Amino acid sequence: MGANIFSEKHQITFYETDVTNTVTPAMLVNMIILASEDQTDSLGVGAEAVAKLGIGWVVTQYKMDITRLPKVGETVELSTQATCYNRYFAFREFWVHDSAGKECVHVESIWVTMNHETRKLVTIPEAVIAPFNSEEVKMIPRISRPKRLTDSDQLMTKKYQVRYFDIDGNGHVNNAHYFDWLLDALPMSFLTRHNLTEINIRFENEVQYHHIVTSEATLMTDVPETIMTKHRIVMENGEVATEAEFHWEPVTQHTDQA
Amino acid sequence: MGANIFSEKHQITFYETDVTNTVTPAMLVNMIILASEDQTDSLGVGAEAVAKLGIGWVVTQYKMDITRLPKVGETVELSTQATCYNRYFAFREFWVHDSAGKECVHVESIWVTMNHETRKLVTIPEAVIAPFNSEEVKMIPRISRPKRLTDSDQLMTKKYQVRYFDIDGNGHVNNAHYFDWLLDALPMSFLTRHNLTEINIRFENEVQYHHIVTSEATLMTDVPETIMTKHRIVMENGEVATEAEFHWEPVTQHTDQA
Repeated sequence: MGANIFSEKHQITFYETDVTNTVTPAMLVNMIILASEDQTDSLGVGAEAVAKLGIGWVVTQYKMDITRLPKVGETVELSTQATCYNRYFAFREFWVHDSAGKECVHVESIWVTMNHETRKLVTIPEAVIAPFNSEEVKMIPRISRPKRLTDSDQLMTKKYQVRYFDIDGNGHVNNAHYFDWLLDALPMSFLTRHNLTEINIRFENEVQYHHIVTSEATLMTDVPETIMTKHRIVMENGEVATEAEFHWEPVTQHTDQA
Repeated sequence: MGANIFSEKHQITFYETDVTNTVTPAMLVNMIILASEDQTDSLGVGAEAVAKLGIGWVVTQYKMDITRLPKVGETVELSTQATCYNRYFAFREFWVHDSAGKECVHVESIWVTMNHETRKLVTIPEAVIAPFNSEEVKMIPRISRPKRLTDSDQLMTKKYQVRYFDIDGNGHVNNAHYFDWLLDALPMSFLTRHNLTEINIRFENEVQYHHIVTSEATLMTDVPETIMTKHRIVMENGEVATEAEFHWEPVTQHTDQA
């Protein structure tokens, strides 16, 4: 007897895809969050209900295993489950399946509840977690930290100023935009010739409207078997907003795909 | 007997809306283009079919009359019609209606066919326009030019570098992004306190990947009856990419809205 699984269909529009007609990581995150919002709303514990307790859910880490990212026009099934939780952390999984029922993406994520005023962690209230049939555990599954950039890494960098339209209905920067900043630091020639196979991203500090952030990236050259890039987003005060690790494979290995 | 009208439903997601949970102009444009792409595909004259002739449709101007912009969660009906055309110009209309059947937005737009290689205008081929039952006319309806910025205007400016994820499946910058650049030049305090009532935007020159553009805006202070901002996007070589004019009303006039 596991946690409830919630599923819904979604058709990929052209504006959710990139120059290769493939779903962007930012839009993939938006879609799975849409599914979890629809689940929480359907169980009466959506953002509005939770806000009445003075708190909100905040994601701290995503780990995504990508078989393939869907293409424009495909209808995918978005599924999600609040798998398990303890006093402070909730572990939520997501799946994206194509119309043939094949898994495209599996996502593990870690969530906390935060006080709206103090921005401090609070114990997850029983009332907001109970409806999911989530399993109460001592320790939620561990997701490894993304590998850190080091001083000897050769960095590719770009700067971004947070825009008005980056702010969501909660008044915060929608962290899906972080994926655009992180990946845009890589050359177009690399992005169009490689498929993502894995993403590990950890959110450390919130960026705010008008902040200027620097997206730093490096291609790991000391890992022979895999193509891997390490990334971070640094704020003007030097604090790290986000660390991430992306794994890739050359596009030619996937000529069988749509 | 007018041109065929094509309609489809669309539910507004949170990532198509802004901090006030209202559809962004960029996403509004994406949605109506989705409807016209679905119409052209259904008639067998979609982008792929047209590309076989070595040409593509390019929009040169939008004029939008906005009763209200829809909110998150609403299901709207997107309708479009290739109203009329002459040798070089096609006039297409769009409508967005809410679930009560009330008109939210009416859009007039002007389109040309462009040679993919030379980027020059070509006569609209009969084969690509015939399926729409569009009326052949001498002169398509005229849309006035957006009012120009002048040397004496006090400018608000911001710079943007075109990103990898701004490029669409045709290899061009999706011009919906221009709306984000244009409006982000205005202060947040203005954007959250005013509703858009009218947009007039004219596309003059294409921006490319990695270009740095400057978004310039001014609040017109010499028009007593209306709140109006004038805008342009200027490229590094000084050429104007886009000119636009936005009309606004204070939010308080619309307390009756969702």
